[in-house]
Amino acid sequence: MAEAVLLPGKEKRVQAGHPWVYRTEVGAVRGEFAPGDVVDIRDARGRYLGRGYANPASQIFIRFLTRQDEAIDRAFFRRRLELAAAYREKVVKDTTAYRLVNAEADFLPALIVDRYGAYLVVQFLSLGMERFKTLITDLLVELFSPQGIYERSDVAVREREGLALVTGPLYGEVPQFVEIDEGGTRFRVDLHAGQKTGFFLDQRENRRAVAELAAGARVLDCFCYTGGFAVSAARGGAAAVLGIDISGAALALARENAALNGVAERCTFHEANSFDALRHLAAAGERFDLVVLDPPAFTKSKEALPGAIRGYKEVNLRAMKLLPSGGFLVTCSCSYHLTEDLFLQVVAAAAHDARRTLRLVELRRQARDHPMLMNAPETYYLKCGIFQVF
Amino acid sequence: MAEAVLLPGKEKRVQAGHPWVYRTEVGAVRGEFAPGDVVDIRDARGRYLGRGYANPASQIFIRFLTRQDEAIDRAFFRRRLELAAAYREKVVKDTTAYRLVNAEADFLPALIVDRYGAYLVVQFLSLGMERFKTLITDLLVELFSPQGIYERSDVAVREREGLALVTGPLYGEVPQFVEIDEGGTRFRVDLHAGQKTGFFLDQRENRRAVAELAAGARVLDCFCYTGGFAVSAARGGAAAVLGIDISGAALALARENAALNGVAERCTFHEANSFDALRHLAAAGERFDLVVLDPPAFTKSKEALPGAIRGYKEVNLRAMKLLPSGGFLVTCSCSYHLTEDLFLQVVAAAAHDARRTLRLVELRRQARDHPMLMNAPETYYLKCGIFQVF
Repeated sequence: MAEAVLLPGKEKRVQAGHPWVYRTEVGAVRGEFAPGDVVDIRDARGRYLGRGYANPASQIFIRFLTRQDEAIDRAFFRRRLELAAAYREKVVKDTTAYRLVNAEADFLPALIVDRYGAYLVVQFLSLGMERFKTLITDLLVELFSPQGIYERSDVAVREREGLALVTGPLYGEVPQFVEIDEGGTRFRVDLHAGQKTGFFLDQRENRRAVAELAAGARVLDCFCYTGGFAVSAARGGAAAVLGIDISGAALALARENAALNGVAERCTFHEANSFDALRHLAAAGERFDLVVLDPPAFTKSKEALPGAIRGYKEVNLRAMKLLPSGGFLVTCSCSYHLTEDLFLQVVAAAAHDARRTLRLVELRRQARDHPMLMNAPETYYLKCGIFQVF
Repeated sequence: MAEAVLLPGKEKRVQAGHPWVYRTEVGAVRGEFAPGDVVDIRDARGRYLGRGYANPASQIFIRFLTRQDEAIDRAFFRRRLELAAAYREKVVKDTTAYRLVNAEADFLPALIVDRYGAYLVVQFLSLGMERFKTLITDLLVELFSPQGIYERSDVAVREREGLALVTGPLYGEVPQFVEIDEGGTRFRVDLHAGQKTGFFLDQRENRRAVAELAAGARVLDCFCYTGGFAVSAARGGAAAVLGIDISGAALALARENAALNGVAERCTFHEANSFDALRHLAAAGERFDLVVLDPPAFTKSKEALPGAIRGYKEVNLRAMKLLPSGGFLVTCSCSYHLTEDLFLQVVAAAAHDARRTLRLVELRRQARDHPMLMNAPETYYLKCGIFQVF
């Protein structure tokens, strides 16, 4: 096996738990290896640090698979998948859909496995993991007996690994639409073409928090997609819910989801740009008791952060204008580059401009089936602040 | 009414929502006022900022009561208490004990009101609020019809306000011990002499999180006080729970609480210094699947922070040594001066020394009945990190 030797001092970050070695941190590679091969990782003094797969075409040269001296074989991946499943048995309650493998944070870098009832949806997001696709598919069948496994490797990040975007069944037959049950709330999910692997599983616990606040409330759900927050709020007893999204296809599914839960009469969905809709609602003198903002990532790069900050501030400012004193704002950001500190600063700046006082009810993150790796800030991306606005 | 005029620029922090004016920020006070009186607050250009009570003997010269132009009278306090109660109706579920008024974060600075079933326990923590004691007691009786109200103004911070420490009934009769029900788990609480107002209400949601992780686990609860986490874990299905505390009186109540919930057979309580106990357990080769660390504040001042950091690191390091790979660490800090960032750094440093890899399941704070005020970091003090240790 080839050995990657790090430059002096470059072992520190990975020894603290970070799972990546950048190209610029590697002094030399001893021995032959093909792109995607597993290599040993050693510090500059030759001490063994672990083992990972390498891709010279990627900025992320090596991703750690293990810190132990263990073979990377079928038994290894079986242990890793069993560990991931055991964790979900601990932390996931009362839902038929959840993330089973969360990539680096499950010590299976660049592998996503989401369960939707009897089906699994998977993403292979690096060349190294792509090489284990058949092995992992076999193991998923063996361990979890799904009726089908669908691949949704249609994520731009694959291009940085020199991989094409691919989707399609890997095992069995997978219908385009499946129905999931999340704490008694049912959702129809598009596994073939929906956002991410079909649904925003990472917001599950935040949907529950919104449902708990929604009794009797007039609720506005911006960027509502297929109605995750909107329908949860209605099921939580909201008096009326307005969902806004720019995608007619997402709204069609949102309306189906409202009907599926018997709350269609209390839910209205409107196709519009949420920024514009917020302004129009304010101009029309509309008021809501609870506003949910769950925008798409306004930036996927550090360079675009200043513009993204303006966008987040603007959307929060507009939402505050719709809230009477005592109203609740549930505001999210899934931009990794907008750190939690920055996110709170942006919300505070919006409150300043809106001349409102905020109190923080709870600061939430992604659901527990999407754990984070200590000292790997990239694994923490979803912020969800629940504020009361005065 | 006297008017306090701030020095130029000193309005910025309070306009951003901070509820305190420091002595050094006031340029002049126009007009006569007695310590504790309500005064108007204006910026250097004479613009009205709000109204608060003043205490020249305190570093915190003025605490804002309102940003509006409204009289500080019975009707004002009635509105504030109604607002606080309405918020708890939204965010508090399934418990007979919770914080009804959380001081600054309920726009009632230095006033704490905790509900324990039919009784209220109150703290008046400043001279200005002390002056309204009779009025507030009357209003609490009128609005919430308690069987009794007990004062627990035995908090050192009162000395900085020039106030004596006092305890005793303010209304009706209040037994020393009451029983509360928290999601089906019952606790006996010492209202007259227990920590804070009798129980760590701020950990309620974190106790629930521990109970959800505890099924089948061997649990260690350090600094267990009257068994809040320990008994919750046992009720959550823990196989065996060991609680450690240095106070024999607290442990007597912990044992009663275990018995009250029918889990005494699975709970053992041991009187010891938790630091020592952790070392002894490690030396004896003991292992636990879940360790809870809920130490008292190791520092109440910024000056003592370095020593506190050493203490937190040490206790976390020792706890990690008791956890097998895959075990859970629930680690808390209620030191305001140990910020969330610092807290995470301390836990990471302990993991580094213990050569363990951590993943973060969830980062929690105080329960929602203890809301935080945006731009007033003093209102956020309780960190609770749930980690899985590898």
